[in-house]
Amino acid sequence: MANSKIRVAIFGGSGYGGSELLRILLAHPSAEIVIVTANEHAGKPVGAVHKNLFGLTKMIFDTAPEDLSSLDVDVAFFALPHGQALSLVPQLPSKTKVIDLSGDFRLDDAGIFKEFYKLDHAGAIQSEFVYGLTETNREAIRSAHYIANPGCFATATLLALSPMVKSGLLTGKIVVDAKTGSSGSGAKPAANTHHPQRMNSFYAYKPFTHQHVPEIEQHLHQVGDFENELIFMTHSLPVSRGIFASCYLETSVNLTNEDIGNIYESFYQEAFFVRMVDGSPDINWVKTTNFCDIASYTNGKQIVVFSAIDNLVKGAAGQAVQNMNLMFGIDETTGLRMMGTNP
Amino acid sequence: MANSKIRVAIFGGSGYGGSELLRILLAHPSAEIVIVTANEHAGKPVGAVHKNLFGLTKMIFDTAPEDLSSLDVDVAFFALPHGQALSLVPQLPSKTKVIDLSGDFRLDDAGIFKEFYKLDHAGAIQSEFVYGLTETNREAIRSAHYIANPGCFATATLLALSPMVKSGLLTGKIVVDAKTGSSGSGAKPAANTHHPQRMNSFYAYKPFTHQHVPEIEQHLHQVGDFENELIFMTHSLPVSRGIFASCYLETSVNLTNEDIGNIYESFYQEAFFVRMVDGSPDINWVKTTNFCDIASYTNGKQIVVFSAIDNLVKGAAGQAVQNMNLMFGIDETTGLRMMGTNP
Amino acid sequence: MANSKIRVAIFGGSGYGGSELLRILLAHPSAEIVIVTANEHAGKPVGAVHKNLFGLTKMIFDTAPEDLSSLDVDVAFFALPHGQALSLVPQLPSKTKVIDLSGDFRLDDAGIFKEFYKLDHAGAIQSEFVYGLTETNREAIRSAHYIANPGCFATATLLALSPMVKSGLLTGKIVVDAKTGSSGSGAKPAANTHHPQRMNSFYAYKPFTHQHVPEIEQHLHQVGDFENELIFMTHSLPVSRGIFASCYLETSVNLTNEDIGNIYESFYQEAFFVRMVDGSPDINWVKTTNFCDIASYTNGKQIVVFSAIDNLVKGAAGQAVQNMNLMFGIDETTGLRMMGTNP
Amino acid sequence: MANSKIRVAIFGGSGYGGSELLRILLAHPSAEIVIVTANEHAGKPVGAVHKNLFGLTKMIFDTAPEDLSSLDVDVAFFALPHGQALSLVPQLPSKTKVIDLSGDFRLDDAGIFKEFYKLDHAGAIQSEFVYGLTETNREAIRSAHYIANPGCFATATLLALSPMVKSGLLTGKIVVDAKTGSSGSGAKPAANTHHPQRMNSFYAYKPFTHQHVPEIEQHLHQVGDFENELIFMTHSLPVSRGIFASCYLETSVNLTNEDIGNIYESFYQEAFFVRMVDGSPDINWVKTTNFCDIASYTNGKQIVVFSAIDNLVKGAAGQAVQNMNLMFGIDETTGLRMMGTNP
Repeated sequence: MANSKIRVAIFGGSGYGGSELLRILLAHPSAEIVIVTANEHAGKPVGAVHKNLFGLTKMIFDTAPEDLSSLDVDVAFFALPHGQALSLVPQLPSKTKVIDLSGDFRLDDAGIFKEFYKLDHAGAIQSEFVYGLTETNREAIRSAHYIANPGCFATATLLALSPMVKSGLLTGKIVVDAKTGSSGSGAKPAANTHHPQRMNSFYAYKPFTHQHVPEIEQHLHQVGDFENELIFMTHSLPVSRGIFASCYLETSVNLTNEDIGNIYESFYQEAFFVRMVDGSPDINWVKTTNFCDIASYTNGKQIVVFSAIDNLVKGAAGQAVQNMNLMFGIDETTGLRMMGTNP
Repeated sequence: MANSKIRVAIFGGSGYGGSELLRILLAHPSAEIVIVTANEHAGKPVGAVHKNLFGLTKMIFDTAPEDLSSLDVDVAFFALPHGQALSLVPQLPSKTKVIDLSGDFRLDDAGIFKEFYKLDHAGAIQSEFVYGLTETNREAIRSAHYIANPGCFATATLLALSPMVKSGLLTGKIVVDAKTGSSGSGAKPAANTHHPQRMNSFYAYKPFTHQHVPEIEQHLHQVGDFENELIFMTHSLPVSRGIFASCYLETSVNLTNEDIGNIYESFYQEAFFVRMVDGSPDINWVKTTNFCDIASYTNGKQIVVFSAIDNLVKGAAGQAVQNMNLMFGIDETTGLRMMGTNP
Repeated sequence: MANSKIRVAIFGGSGYGGSELLRILLAHPSAEIVIVTANEHAGKPVGAVHKNLFGLTKMIFDTAPEDLSSLDVDVAFFALPHGQALSLVPQLPSKTKVIDLSGDFRLDDAGIFKEFYKLDHAGAIQSEFVYGLTETNREAIRSAHYIANPGCFATATLLALSPMVKSGLLTGKIVVDAKTGSSGSGAKPAANTHHPQRMNSFYAYKPFTHQHVPEIEQHLHQVGDFENELIFMTHSLPVSRGIFASCYLETSVNLTNEDIGNIYESFYQEAFFVRMVDGSPDINWVKTTNFCDIASYTNGKQIVVFSAIDNLVKGAAGQAVQNMNLMFGIDETTGLRMMGTNP
Repeated sequence: MANSKIRVAIFGGSGYGGSELLRILLAHPSAEIVIVTANEHAGKPVGAVHKNLFGLTKMIFDTAPEDLSSLDVDVAFFALPHGQALSLVPQLPSKTKVIDLSGDFRLDDAGIFKEFYKLDHAGAIQSEFVYGLTETNREAIRSAHYIANPGCFATATLLALSPMVKSGLLTGKIVVDAKTGSSGSGAKPAANTHHPQRMNSFYAYKPFTHQHVPEIEQHLHQVGDFENELIFMTHSLPVSRGIFASCYLETSVNLTNEDIGNIYESFYQEAFFVRMVDGSPDINWVKTTNFCDIASYTNGKQIVVFSAIDNLVKGAAGQAVQNMNLMFGIDETTGLRMMGTNP
């Protein structure tokens, strides 16, 4: 990169994913945001929409350019609702790298994609997309031109499961009980995020039908010899930020807590953002950060692995920037060592 | 009433005010809900909309009858958005008593009403409305046919201010710093009640322009010789239920805490639902109840009075039923001794 | 009972279990609280400790009588920390019925009890205790003299699992992912319930070692032919009240959602307090009530059952009173039809 | 400072003030933490106590050195409970600069200090302390050796009041209704921060007696010709972080919103961390940041000024570091441009 900064475009800057991309990239020492779009807020200062950024940037929201082929940036982040990047990405100049935070390019199988998203693949470009779970796919990401950034639930789940799947010791079905904060529903008010009710709520949703299931299964097949049935269930927490996944596994051989700890320590020895913690992970300790905290326990053959992330950071914008860093040959943690807070 | 129950209609049963009217009246030993309307939910079971009531009632939401003149009930509660009761109330049979929870009939002065609500008075019927702050207006309410039920902020503020206004000891301006939970914004999702942001929010709104100001001033003129300037400010709390008002007063003579305590104890000696508490009121102790908790302190001539209510109960549906009880000659507390919880 | 009221003693009235017993029993039409103890608050009005009850009772906290043999009540509730009822219960007059909310008498096997509670059985009296999960044990409870009231997690879990266990269709292991609000930790402040951190927390605790596991297993053996491995995991939610259990089951035959719905409807056809709900249960809809809301889904052989209760009501004091009602031959729902709120 | 970093000691690193000092100073480009003390956690890794910092520092908590005179640091921060810095500060080498976050050195008048803190002044050293409200005292702070860092409530209040006090236009009394999050009560669990109750609470405390009153009055006398009576009242919010102050003022002349806006804009034209905002400040937009957001409104002679800060950052550790920056001649905002988040 020599001395010049990575020139960045953000498509969809007014949602929570866009908000976090702005927060991270505005402070990134090696990146420069050239354009940030938000059609409904075009012309407004970024700091008038994301008031946390007021006084920290003079950027103004743009509309998306009509002619994308003349866009002159090194990388474009897409933080748009599902289905929109599908048609926009192919219009970009071929030199422009892409990191898409939606589900548009995550599923390789067109039939499964259609089943879960009711959409058709973008075409040939799909085969060029690399799945952006940094810790399991680092080398492919370094040389990737197009990144399908993982879903928030998929990130928490895959980081918890991958070491055991790769170990080849799993047997039987896998149950993942996952919970997310309300920011996972996006910035648009809705009945399920109406504060008077949500603040006292905990409930399940989309049983057996969540669109992150095929994404998780697809990637586990890349990680190891994955033949297990996966039961994946999503729930809503009365907090703003955070995902917690409780993963129930079974092994064919007796293992101790130490055995399992070693498997994870070894798998993640180079992963700055995965922390193996004592006790239990807690979303309180990862909120606003790019960390994924993990702990595991066994009673012999039954194993539980707990993981916690911030859904908007490691589960979205943070991991996206982590991938950008790799794609441009700079340290993976650049601009991402944001500390959480206590309390 | 002899042995028969009070026959009740509820107009607007799907909002939070309606929800609380249902909760209270379904368990009320002397009342019977004949009809509950909710146009957008007509045909649905009440327990499918207010899931807290599932299994406790078989009632179905109705549309409002086109011909109100044939409605056969003893009393009609209106829990509709501002402006709707204005035209509906005059269509009711003259025998039907009315308790309106909106602001439609609270302001006697047509000009002030127009200024704050952008609406015209309903006509002659306005003069028959009695302001339903039970503790200060009990005798008028007993014989009233039409009740304008007080606003939630107005209730908390007037119960805190009335004893001192009546004492005739006040001098100088009055500052009321009032705070409400998110349910005060109603059941419809909106940006200011979007959980991801609201859960960490506290902010002020409508400075110097809140529509409860003229309502408070109008009633203070009824309570005593009120000549003070009133500064009234509203804020939003990150809880679901509860209003807390901090009222700053000044007297012309030196008073002790005991002096002021005596004024309040005396004023509220027959008021079951006003509790003079040690320390501070706390919305935690009044939530889901019809109580108003009050405490007061002075440093001599400067006085602060704190009051706390549940905005949906004493600030709306509970007080409405309290007024119904009086209007039908039964004990004021009937059906209203719901206990709060700890925690 | 003829016309006289059930005379009640509450041991341990200052904790959250005691608080809820007071809330329910003070309003119970057929019960009369004769004495409520709280050693550290002895001499204080109940309404000074549980400020929600201020103005609703004139009761004063007592110390526990030194000579329990002369206590003249029909039933004694024990809401004390684990280990205290063990020695107190045997001192009561033999005519006095007992409902213990602690874990002291729940486990029939002395060895397992010692393993999980580090305590010895009270002796012969243990064999007279009946497990008080009302919906599965109703007939035994009617004629019981001593009731071991179920744990909060055990209640939510057993109500979710029992119909399927009784159906005899289960195969493979059972995974229960359970979550509780902070009131489950009791009224005494501690690090894990410190508000600045807890409000943004979600974490797991006691993996593979929770003391409710043997209680659940013991009762499932009574309910049906239970041979499955149980994986039970507890987590902490950032709400005050509520338990939510997600139960993952497997059957040997293909079932539809309707099949499973029928099993539950049939099992709970006489259970007023179990509601089969559409969508998902939500702790918001059961808070402060004695209801248990349940929903179930299957993809064929994999089943998930969700249940939600208020940990302090159906999970403690409410169920205790439900059991009292049965023991004294009155309607099971007496004094327990408290409605929840929306919001 | 040439190329070397500012060598820092933190006394009291395990509380919330210490936690935030660590968060900020670990990432500060011009500072180096040489020692951080926490007697009860001595020997433990910082990241085991403040788990947000796990993986980000290898520092270990120390006990405070017995012989402070040999401590070799450029500046010592004291984040200890009130009363402890009083005796420690005089033991430091005279070259060591000091920033004390407690109330020990804030009050110049020994009698008032004794009245509010029940403690005696440290002696002659008291006169060398400069009050560290950066925006009103910048020049004095640059050359100060000892800084008494303002209280959290005092910071929010003084930043809201100072421009109007300096304007000389105020008349009559000033009412400040201030609210704080639960982290203001510190890291030690207590009844008022017990989550099951606090999450639904709002209450007032210390009416007419809060120890920040004399601190505010003392500094207003430095800011301008302050003769007004100050009524200052504190309340507790059910959030973790944030202070919101509503300040009610009166002027002798008629002013417009624009007039007042100009007074504030002018007063704060060089203050990076004070943002004049549209609408209302909201603690959501300042949480975890060093910003103070302010808005003001008038109806002519009555004025309200709203301010919002994070009590632990601008109200404690952030302002402390801001002062350190000035004392060492570096840019005031160094290490303090942490962005808040949306949501």
